[in-house]
Amino acid sequence: MGIKVGIIGCGSIAKFRHAPEYQANPHVTELVFYDRNAARAKELALEFGGCYVETVDELINDPTITAISDCSSNEVHHIHTSNALLSGKHVLCEKPLAINVAFAEKMLEAERKSGKKLMIDHNQRFTKAHQKAKELLDQKELGEVLTFKTTFGHQGPEGWGVDKSNATWFFKKDRSYSGVAGDLGIHKIDLIHYLLDDEIDVVHAFHGALDKVDETGEKIEVCDNVVCALKTKRGRLGTASFSWTYYGAEDNSTTIYCEGGIIKIYQHPEAQLIIEKKDGTVIKYELEPIQTNENQTNTGVIDAFIDCIINDREPPVTGKQALACLKVIDQILGL
Amino acid sequence: MGIKVGIIGCGSIAKFRHAPEYQANPHVTELVFYDRNAARAKELALEFGGCYVETVDELINDPTITAISDCSSNEVHHIHTSNALLSGKHVLCEKPLAINVAFAEKMLEAERKSGKKLMIDHNQRFTKAHQKAKELLDQKELGEVLTFKTTFGHQGPEGWGVDKSNATWFFKKDRSYSGVAGDLGIHKIDLIHYLLDDEIDVVHAFHGALDKVDETGEKIEVCDNVVCALKTKRGRLGTASFSWTYYGAEDNSTTIYCEGGIIKIYQHPEAQLIIEKKDGTVIKYELEPIQTNENQTNTGVIDAFIDCIINDREPPVTGKQALACLKVIDQILGL
Amino acid sequence: MGIKVGIIGCGSIAKFRHAPEYQANPHVTELVFYDRNAARAKELALEFGGCYVETVDELINDPTITAISDCSSNEVHHIHTSNALLSGKHVLCEKPLAINVAFAEKMLEAERKSGKKLMIDHNQRFTKAHQKAKELLDQKELGEVLTFKTTFGHQGPEGWGVDKSNATWFFKKDRSYSGVAGDLGIHKIDLIHYLLDDEIDVVHAFHGALDKVDETGEKIEVCDNVVCALKTKRGRLGTASFSWTYYGAEDNSTTIYCEGGIIKIYQHPEAQLIIEKKDGTVIKYELEPIQTNENQTNTGVIDAFIDCIINDREPPVTGKQALACLKVIDQILGL
Amino acid sequence: MGIKVGIIGCGSIAKFRHAPEYQANPHVTELVFYDRNAARAKELALEFGGCYVETVDELINDPTITAISDCSSNEVHHIHTSNALLSGKHVLCEKPLAINVAFAEKMLEAERKSGKKLMIDHNQRFTKAHQKAKELLDQKELGEVLTFKTTFGHQGPEGWGVDKSNATWFFKKDRSYSGVAGDLGIHKIDLIHYLLDDEIDVVHAFHGALDKVDETGEKIEVCDNVVCALKTKRGRLGTASFSWTYYGAEDNSTTIYCEGGIIKIYQHPEAQLIIEKKDGTVIKYELEPIQTNENQTNTGVIDAFIDCIINDREPPVTGKQALACLKVIDQILGL
Amino acid sequence: MGIKVGIIGCGSIAKFRHAPEYQANPHVTELVFYDRNAARAKELALEFGGCYVETVDELINDPTITAISDCSSNEVHHIHTSNALLSGKHVLCEKPLAINVAFAEKMLEAERKSGKKLMIDHNQRFTKAHQKAKELLDQKELGEVLTFKTTFGHQGPEGWGVDKSNATWFFKKDRSYSGVAGDLGIHKIDLIHYLLDDEIDVVHAFHGALDKVDETGEKIEVCDNVVCALKTKRGRLGTASFSWTYYGAEDNSTTIYCEGGIIKIYQHPEAQLIIEKKDGTVIKYELEPIQTNENQTNTGVIDAFIDCIINDREPPVTGKQALACLKVIDQILGL
Amino acid sequence: MGIKVGIIGCGSIAKFRHAPEYQANPHVTELVFYDRNAARAKELALEFGGCYVETVDELINDPTITAISDCSSNEVHHIHTSNALLSGKHVLCEKPLAINVAFAEKMLEAERKSGKKLMIDHNQRFTKAHQKAKELLDQKELGEVLTFKTTFGHQGPEGWGVDKSNATWFFKKDRSYSGVAGDLGIHKIDLIHYLLDDEIDVVHAFHGALDKVDETGEKIEVCDNVVCALKTKRGRLGTASFSWTYYGAEDNSTTIYCEGGIIKIYQHPEAQLIIEKKDGTVIKYELEPIQTNENQTNTGVIDAFIDCIINDREPPVTGKQALACLKVIDQILGL
Repeated sequence: MGIKVGIIGCGSIAKFRHAPEYQANPHVTELVFYDRNAARAKELALEFGGCYVETVDELINDPTITAISDCSSNEVHHIHTSNALLSGKHVLCEKPLAINVAFAEKMLEAERKSGKKLMIDHNQRFTKAHQKAKELLDQKELGEVLTFKTTFGHQGPEGWGVDKSNATWFFKKDRSYSGVAGDLGIHKIDLIHYLLDDEIDVVHAFHGALDKVDETGEKIEVCDNVVCALKTKRGRLGTASFSWTYYGAEDNSTTIYCEGGIIKIYQHPEAQLIIEKKDGTVIKYELEPIQTNENQTNTGVIDAFIDCIINDREPPVTGKQALACLKVIDQILGL
Repeated sequence: MGIKVGIIGCGSIAKFRHAPEYQANPHVTELVFYDRNAARAKELALEFGGCYVETVDELINDPTITAISDCSSNEVHHIHTSNALLSGKHVLCEKPLAINVAFAEKMLEAERKSGKKLMIDHNQRFTKAHQKAKELLDQKELGEVLTFKTTFGHQGPEGWGVDKSNATWFFKKDRSYSGVAGDLGIHKIDLIHYLLDDEIDVVHAFHGALDKVDETGEKIEVCDNVVCALKTKRGRLGTASFSWTYYGAEDNSTTIYCEGGIIKIYQHPEAQLIIEKKDGTVIKYELEPIQTNENQTNTGVIDAFIDCIINDREPPVTGKQALACLKVIDQILGL
Repeated sequence: MGIKVGIIGCGSIAKFRHAPEYQANPHVTELVFYDRNAARAKELALEFGGCYVETVDELINDPTITAISDCSSNEVHHIHTSNALLSGKHVLCEKPLAINVAFAEKMLEAERKSGKKLMIDHNQRFTKAHQKAKELLDQKELGEVLTFKTTFGHQGPEGWGVDKSNATWFFKKDRSYSGVAGDLGIHKIDLIHYLLDDEIDVVHAFHGALDKVDETGEKIEVCDNVVCALKTKRGRLGTASFSWTYYGAEDNSTTIYCEGGIIKIYQHPEAQLIIEKKDGTVIKYELEPIQTNENQTNTGVIDAFIDCIINDREPPVTGKQALACLKVIDQILGL
Repeated sequence: MGIKVGIIGCGSIAKFRHAPEYQANPHVTELVFYDRNAARAKELALEFGGCYVETVDELINDPTITAISDCSSNEVHHIHTSNALLSGKHVLCEKPLAINVAFAEKMLEAERKSGKKLMIDHNQRFTKAHQKAKELLDQKELGEVLTFKTTFGHQGPEGWGVDKSNATWFFKKDRSYSGVAGDLGIHKIDLIHYLLDDEIDVVHAFHGALDKVDETGEKIEVCDNVVCALKTKRGRLGTASFSWTYYGAEDNSTTIYCEGGIIKIYQHPEAQLIIEKKDGTVIKYELEPIQTNENQTNTGVIDAFIDCIINDREPPVTGKQALACLKVIDQILGL
Repeated sequence: MGIKVGIIGCGSIAKFRHAPEYQANPHVTELVFYDRNAARAKELALEFGGCYVETVDELINDPTITAISDCSSNEVHHIHTSNALLSGKHVLCEKPLAINVAFAEKMLEAERKSGKKLMIDHNQRFTKAHQKAKELLDQKELGEVLTFKTTFGHQGPEGWGVDKSNATWFFKKDRSYSGVAGDLGIHKIDLIHYLLDDEIDVVHAFHGALDKVDETGEKIEVCDNVVCALKTKRGRLGTASFSWTYYGAEDNSTTIYCEGGIIKIYQHPEAQLIIEKKDGTVIKYELEPIQTNENQTNTGVIDAFIDCIINDREPPVTGKQALACLKVIDQILGL
Repeated sequence: MGIKVGIIGCGSIAKFRHAPEYQANPHVTELVFYDRNAARAKELALEFGGCYVETVDELINDPTITAISDCSSNEVHHIHTSNALLSGKHVLCEKPLAINVAFAEKMLEAERKSGKKLMIDHNQRFTKAHQKAKELLDQKELGEVLTFKTTFGHQGPEGWGVDKSNATWFFKKDRSYSGVAGDLGIHKIDLIHYLLDDEIDVVHAFHGALDKVDETGEKIEVCDNVVCALKTKRGRLGTASFSWTYYGAEDNSTTIYCEGGIIKIYQHPEAQLIIEKKDGTVIKYELEPIQTNENQTNTGVIDAFIDCIINDREPPVTGKQALACLKVIDQILGL
């Protein structure tokens, strides 16, 4: 018996990632789209061969829908996702989980009450290079982790949204909430938690709107750059940089320094993972090219979400993990 | 008329950098060596064809000596350098300038009183790639600088000193004072000041002794790793990492993110400087390979020091600049 | 208010360069096509969404047409372009300007009388690599130019025209006039004038039909190869080779030898511009791949032509400059 | 029975090429050195284990000497070589054969009279890449030759002579006679004759002293650059450039354009010979790196000279061939 | 007058190789398709614009058909091909010629009787690299052949057939007859015969079904791996490996060791043919990439077949040659 | 207390491998050399700072000698090694263990009786790439091994021995016994046994003297080429080629085909080990370059031998294992 999925919010992330990946998943048999702007829902229904509804309640109350992707704006995640959970749906919520910790905690409360699965779309974990790095780190091939560096930056989100301009919601305080920190930073915070099997404990950071201007020519209200020094609960030290002003090639690199060598991720176009060992040995893994805004391949997130429903497993990215990331973002922003 | 130079302290830095570069400089006609361990002074006198003296006072009071390199241990720089200046010598002092700010300020006082030149050996400024980057930044080829990243790390100083073991003075609190921060960090702090024509204003950092042990097997007393988030007076944000525990290839890279593109220094083995521009243009400069502990070429420091004496110019690295770096190191270490 | 453009002659150059580039230009709102063979005009009108006319006079006398591309055969440029100018149109004339100097001088006369703009399609100036080289030469980054070498050659024009055979008009004396000299040579003569801000003064050359045969198997009447030694007014010396018989990869390279180093253009597949300096520094510019007959990208010529009309600027390639090139071709051919 | 060889003139060419290659040849058993400056002869005798004589006549009249290398200055070749031949010696004369055609003709007269062998050191013929190209051309693998390009240029001869300064004899009218034309050009003229089995018939050229100055700061009296358009007896067209002012990497490249493809020699650091065929096939020959002033390997010239003596064969580079080259140089210089 | 061709069997080989290559051949004017499963014949008729027939006899008896491709299953080649020959058709028969030697001999008998041409699709001979190797070997550029190595292996035929599963006929004893030996091995046996102008005389081999299972999960009945030591009539020694279990990149390499060097075929992605000579010279031929199951280009086989009909030449792969290969396969399998 | 070592036989293997590696081993304090030709023993004693003896008995009976390297000719291994063992020495015997199985069995008998250690110099096991491959195979990273290919070939042993000519003992029946099979083949047979943790069970092979001639111009008496098909006890199939007539680069490659991918050893100059996996992942290990006759680095064999003495462990290559290899060689040669 196939799974019927509802998608709330029909922006770019729904169009380019959720909808096509549900379509490609063999267990998903039907798609229902909702967007405040019904035209957008209709368009996706057409493109991906499903139907659409006019109100979010139709979706949430439809008893034949088993699972929901919450691709709504960040500021309403806590409403839609909580309602969906409490209506008995499994929910895959886009990142960031919520625009503040209090909202996020209510979502986790809804998860607990409902007994349904809540998964968050921290998709960095699912790339081949990050999965291989995780495997090597878990096996302690290079001993314990000592320090790390991680970066996520590109030329900015103006080109990503539907309207490709600097009027983008990413630049609005009330909708994006945390600027580049929530857009890019949260991905790599989650990745560090995942790879190191550890949690950021203390953050020292600076953030600011250094270059981006909105449609009126004013400096944007949210930060376009974050730099941090980080310390984990297990005592590892690291730096992180998140930026919308890297005006060259996109950079999604991470380096993990261990007792026995170094793991370099996404630093070479052909070898996505490189290991340098103390004795001079270099091991190059040619896996798959990194996903960039220009290179969209299957993230694996949808398959993982459907899989945890079918096999009744814990989601690979839990609400609790996402909350931990959100708290780090709060520390970064000094909230 | 040639210049007679005295060298105080005959360890590795004197042997591998100062002595050979003085020897290669056409204006230097005589070398006099001093070390607390007279045997080492004698050895260098033999190797580089000069003489040696038994006491530091002989050197400082020799009226025929015009210039002095202070290659003594960090903890006595303020004594030897100050005395030399006050005795009318120009002094090139090894980095870090001193083991605390108070001592350093006294050295600057001595410089002022004596009217002699004090230069500090922050040699990173002199590499071809850094000089080219400086030129591009000064000309604003890529507009203003927004953010930056800098790193200096290798497998540790155990292999550098004369005795190649973890009994090295680099690991001793009372002699190295600031561990990797003073050994490697101060180079890149100075470099950032130089390249950006700016000064680090606020530092958020973590530091610790994460891996290195001394000859007794105890964790070392000074830090082997530093990670920082930095903010400059002109509002640029950046990260820096300094490490003795990068157990792979040495990393002395710096990245400068500007309004019009990115400058990548020492990130590619053949192209020491790479520019990525907003329009996709990539420019690769094949200059000279970076100096590493294994690849020692002429630093240009000695030539610059002699040049500022002969032409009565301000030294390219002043005591004031070195003091500014020292204050940043103090911030890093939370002093 | 948009610009209405007329195109005279609907051969390959109109189809592959002029029409699509006008279509892509935001200021051009209408296209009108004319060809002696009305079917070809009709076909392009269909493809690029404009209309066509049956006689050239309709085009030239249409008061709503502001600008005209003269893509007619070389032997009638002087008629159509002069008429168009005198009818008050700005004209972009294909190269070579005319089949002899006398005709060309009449065209310049028409330009002067009409007060309209005459631009010639010497498109080599507009490639990214040539523009960057020009910038470096103007800034005297490598000092003064001493000597140069330039080449333009490929397997021949048989494959370029509409009928892809050796019955091509390029091989006919009465239509192509100057063979490879006018087809390829004039491009690089103009480029040398442009890059060096100088003019070829004396030419020593050989030319001949060494290999190409026409549809009857006879050696062609125009030259398929030119080799020259060149001297500029400012005393620079160089060589040039133009060929339709380079039976390997196309070669459109130029090398400029300066007092401080060498500029190599289009000699490496990835780095379109390479600078070698006296001190051993090598700088590689990865710009865009060169245009070849197989790789047609926007030349920038149409945009430049429209831009000089809108902003009432001097065309970037003037009739006077084109005449200078034509005189060099005459010298090459010994006319 | 071994061959005893005399060397006239003990400058760089004798020291770095003739003497070591005679020493390495198994048939040569004794070396005798002569130089106007006896000290230099003595030095080489010491280094290569031979004896030296005080006057050139001792050498020329020594009945035990079979063969002579004439490494004297260009302006006395015709004297020494003619005398040696007429005294019954086989002579290997350095290039250029003589400083004018009349002298050269007398040398050929001496050769004819003496019945001895006269070989000229046009060593370009002997490199592996040139030999392979010759073989391919002789076999007509790519059909007939149509056109060609050849170049020989570097940063100038100042660093080559014994005294490494711009007081070098290469810059003196009375000793070098033809500047870069005789130094570098004659090599490539000979090479073109050899590869194409043809002879330059008409030359159109410019030459000049564009950049080099002598020890007084005056422009040099001989040309430092030559550019030519060339036509062979069999109707092939080509260009040639010879330069002492290529202030980047040395360039000794030649390209031969044939009916069926292109032969590229010394244009790629690893593949010294590359063939591009009409059908797109590319064949890369990795032979040996080209000889430059910095990379001196066995030229093969000495072995070939000794071999033609032992086996009584015609020398691979005859006086007649060298005379033909000299006449081309005369045409280049407009003499 | 064009040739009308019949195709017997409409599986993958007909669809991807025979039909499109006949379609591209200028001499072939009509195609007629037959398959036991008429739907498949119909489909190809539609795709390639021919007609189809319901019985094989219609095809064989059609007097307007000149040539036939026998793409039927291996076990019926001897029936269809023999009948076609005896009906006066020229036949191109897929490999392997037949499932046993006796059948094959009857086919040759039919060929002799009919006087028609029988060609076998041993297409390895026709690749550019193999043709170039043959030319070099025939010319004895490297002297005589001493030894050789050849391999043909990939991940298995499951993905090649129409039904892309391990129910493939390749795995069935009664249809594929000889497993990987007949599928891949016969290609390389024929290639060795062709390249060396020699014949395998004695074979020592092992074969087995080491890994592949059929649709029931049982080990397959035919071999998935063959390894052999080989000796030719002229005394050359070699090894061969044929495999359906190379679970990485496809390998179709051959190495020929000669008295003067080594010929390496299909061992480098860009240089399909590499020659290493005794003296260290390496010659790299960049021809065309090898055909793999994923990279299907024109094999040249159809053109060669049509050419031998039109010009009444002996087919480039004769029945006799194919029989010789079949006998080697028998030896390999110990039959 | 240091170990005193005796070396029997002072040919190339003693001079280039045993002596320098003993000298570099920190536990070895004295070296004693013996050779039938006392001059050679004396020479090595001089070079490596030991003493030499005139008779082999002096060595074998010296009670202060703990360990012996038997570098004598193959035909006397069984005598010297057995005697040494029975005199209470640990013995490292060069490969091949003996010239026939019967002799080898006596040596194992001597080992058993003496209770001393016998190790054989099968040094291929010790290279980094082979050790890494072993580790990956033991961990079944790619599942079970299915098939394999191995090769060992070069231009021949003429250049290896002391007298560098084709009078070498390698070419003599009575001294080398098994030609290339014993020289190169035994290394790779042992390697296959080691890597696969398996043993060759059946061998089908051809061998012959195809090209090499001895000093009289006669074909040599031993084989210069071997080709084999191999089957192991656990059912894996493979091919092997051993050759002295690979007249290009040396080839010491091995490929292991597994259920989940392929391991390629020594097939790429920079990545000595490459893994290709079923899913397309490629992993490249940059370890150390392979040892060739031109590139001699520490084999690790001597260190392993000394280590097993000091720690009383089983030698990493036992007499039993060497005997198994010898039996395979016998099968290859049909003995």
